[in-house]
Amino acid sequence: MKAIVLTGCPHAVLVDVSHDVPHFDISAGAFMLFAGTRHFPGGTVHLGVVDPGVGSSRRRLALKAGGRYYVGPDNGLFGIVIDEVGLEQVVELAARPEGAPTFEGRDVFAPAAAALASGVPLDSLGHRTDPPRMLDNSSPRILWVDGFGNLVTNLKPPVRPMRIHSHYITAAAKTYWDAKPNEPFVYVGSMGYLEIAVREQRADRMLGARAGMLIELI
Amino acid sequence: MKAIVLTGCPHAVLVDVSHDVPHFDISAGAFMLFAGTRHFPGGTVHLGVVDPGVGSSRRRLALKAGGRYYVGPDNGLFGIVIDEVGLEQVVELAARPEGAPTFEGRDVFAPAAAALASGVPLDSLGHRTDPPRMLDNSSPRILWVDGFGNLVTNLKPPVRPMRIHSHYITAAAKTYWDAKPNEPFVYVGSMGYLEIAVREQRADRMLGARAGMLIELI
Amino acid sequence: MKAIVLTGCPHAVLVDVSHDVPHFDISAGAFMLFAGTRHFPGGTVHLGVVDPGVGSSRRRLALKAGGRYYVGPDNGLFGIVIDEVGLEQVVELAARPEGAPTFEGRDVFAPAAAALASGVPLDSLGHRTDPPRMLDNSSPRILWVDGFGNLVTNLKPPVRPMRIHSHYITAAAKTYWDAKPNEPFVYVGSMGYLEIAVREQRADRMLGARAGMLIELI
Repeated sequence: MKAIVLTGCPHAVLVDVSHDVPHFDISAGAFMLFAGTRHFPGGTVHLGVVDPGVGSSRRRLALKAGGRYYVGPDNGLFGIVIDEVGLEQVVELAARPEGAPTFEGRDVFAPAAAALASGVPLDSLGHRTDPPRMLDNSSPRILWVDGFGNLVTNLKPPVRPMRIHSHYITAAAKTYWDAKPNEPFVYVGSMGYLEIAVREQRADRMLGARAGMLIELI
Repeated sequence: MKAIVLTGCPHAVLVDVSHDVPHFDISAGAFMLFAGTRHFPGGTVHLGVVDPGVGSSRRRLALKAGGRYYVGPDNGLFGIVIDEVGLEQVVELAARPEGAPTFEGRDVFAPAAAALASGVPLDSLGHRTDPPRMLDNSSPRILWVDGFGNLVTNLKPPVRPMRIHSHYITAAAKTYWDAKPNEPFVYVGSMGYLEIAVREQRADRMLGARAGMLIELI
Repeated sequence: MKAIVLTGCPHAVLVDVSHDVPHFDISAGAFMLFAGTRHFPGGTVHLGVVDPGVGSSRRRLALKAGGRYYVGPDNGLFGIVIDEVGLEQVVELAARPEGAPTFEGRDVFAPAAAALASGVPLDSLGHRTDPPRMLDNSSPRILWVDGFGNLVTNLKPPVRPMRIHSHYITAAAKTYWDAKPNEPFVYVGSMGYLEIAVREQRADRMLGARAGMLIELI
């Protein structure tokens, strides 16, 4: 995919935002596509592929949201970005019959990303189409487990007590340093969502929690 | 290695093609050096080090193949690239007696890659030498296990039934989406080789397969 | 963090030196910050965050050492760099009250790194302050376990025999190739420290060794 992008746009600056999205986990991908891209400058092109339906009839999309471009499959992956910053414009990309049917990241999405990065207008990449599919994001749940085992929920402030399995999480803190050892606490994370952590420990292990798991508000 | 490349060629665009080659697995490295580089533009310089023999008398090479440059140890690592795109020219690099004998990637190969990326002609980096060592690639085998557990074989189309351990793999599909759950299938992968996968599962775990393992054609 | 750096310095060349520092292991981070940066050209800006004390009163620093810039928390992370190349100048960065208190890497250190990379003078980023906190690095110990399981110690040449648990390591070699199979050996590693390895095996597993462990000179 990077080779195709650099072929189409030799001066592109490539940044790997994350390779830690669990396989086939579209909600986690949608979270990372929002959280990992929101600080990039306007006009940046973001290519995201979490694509269990590659080869099915799901649409291939390129869109503009929050002043940035996003390219990928229409399976809910753009849901959180659009929820957070609003959709400006979306086009449907054509399939590439000569491409490999199992690797549209390389054969469909990367060429579109290269074109956008080179200044090709979004409108010229495909025909206007209906808004992307959204996620069902209504129940409180864990969107993401970060590299330290901290749990990112889909809840916004204010901080509230929660339950995961039989664990009541009632403490709150502003930083890890403020928290007590061994006691899980809720805080407003750096991405604007409520998170659950344990100081210098992995909250996912202590609480038996994984991305996708529902949580209960008390 | 990147520091040395950027010192010699400050405007180099660096791409990490793969860090997933199993340690000391030259065949897997040879596969990735082909599969991961073939879409890069002509003139790109590819530096590959899978080098269990560092410190032995194996040659240090820089070569041109398929319009791109390759730099690394002469242990078979260039075998699949040369098989696929043909060898244009090869030179032997000198050792650097002042360098660390355990890290020729940094002390021999990175400076050569930087020189090529800066436009220094291949011929001026060393003396012409015999073609690189090739791999014994004649038996059907698994070259690579990708991040999803899909098995890349060294076989080209057409799709054929195979056996791994006691598992007969007789189904075929064009995409993961076309395949039946729980049934391993053969398909032409995005790199032009036959691959074995199981839809939304890891074929390596289901079949007990690893890179390097021989497979049987039925 | 990369988004913030590219926003402040759009033409920055970004290199991920390492993501393998064990969580909260400041000594390992200090080692990597030295070993992984010393070949970069003068003027390069290195941003390092191993920061169990985020949210505490530890200072936020930007400094110049060995002709390069370093930005990060004042917890010993710069200790080996300063030991090896000497401190030229150090300033204390201000907190960003509007930033997330758990992610100063993004909200304090990345903007400072972008400014330095754009040519802003170090002196204008904060007020001069006392030298950074150093590490207690006096006992022989393992600083780092590399991806091959080789053990990097904090000892400089000459090569000497050592003990780890009940294992006496008395063999020496110049390269892995010179060593005998199954026999751990000591050598001068590519970063100038004594290392312990076993040819084509993982010394960490064979010897039961981890980063931070003390070793005994015989």
